[in-house]
Amino acid sequence: MTPGASTALPGRALDHPDRADIRLPQVLHALADPVRLSLVSALAATAAELPCSAFELPVTKSTCTHHFRVLREAGVIRQAYRGTAKLNALRRADLEALFPGLLDAILTAYTAPAQARRGA
Amino acid sequence: MTPGASTALPGRALDHPDRADIRLPQVLHALADPVRLSLVSALAATAAELPCSAFELPVTKSTCTHHFRVLREAGVIRQAYRGTAKLNALRRADLEALFPGLLDAILTAYTAPAQARRGA
Repeated sequence: MTPGASTALPGRALDHPDRADIRLPQVLHALADPVRLSLVSALAATAAELPCSAFELPVTKSTCTHHFRVLREAGVIRQAYRGTAKLNALRRADLEALFPGLLDAILTAYTAPAQARRGA
Repeated sequence: MTPGASTALPGRALDHPDRADIRLPQVLHALADPVRLSLVSALAATAAELPCSAFELPVTKSTCTHHFRVLREAGVIRQAYRGTAKLNALRRADLEALFPGLLDAILTAYTAPAQARRGA
């Protein structure tokens, strides 16, 4: 059904939208989930590429894989195989060029919501 | 099933989350839709409260009503009856207190995405 799929394993590539094809609604949808927000927040805190196993999450590995796929397809992260591991990194430069200030505003809102609520 | 519902028509109230109960994932979900982004962008451009009929949308009135309900339940807008009309206004102060810079970053990303893409 998918020609080449079986031969693509050694250098198997993952689909990523080009920068010009990244859309705001899809990015917001990808980030509109507590688990995905926690993944993006962790990726934003490091220069390293991280595998699923680096995250302590209250979900199964397959659910983690799903969340990373949603983030990749929306253009929020890049995923690449390194040996047997699939590593994840934020597409910070692409997001900042397209939507200046958006990622930082969301990360700030995610990491420091309690303070604002106390002043409510 | 809902006591009081039939008698609530004259001063019928609409449920809104308190500021302290507004959550980032719900706000991002509410904004992760092209139609809702256009509604919020229009509301942000005016100090007036606007009814559904003020918006020229490629959707039916009931769909417009649905989108406004999603925005209200997420805490993005306030809705109030004025006579027979239901008027909508952004909860800008609440959103800014909870998520500084978020709304402006999203509105900027929504209204000026082409420029960034040309530089891609």
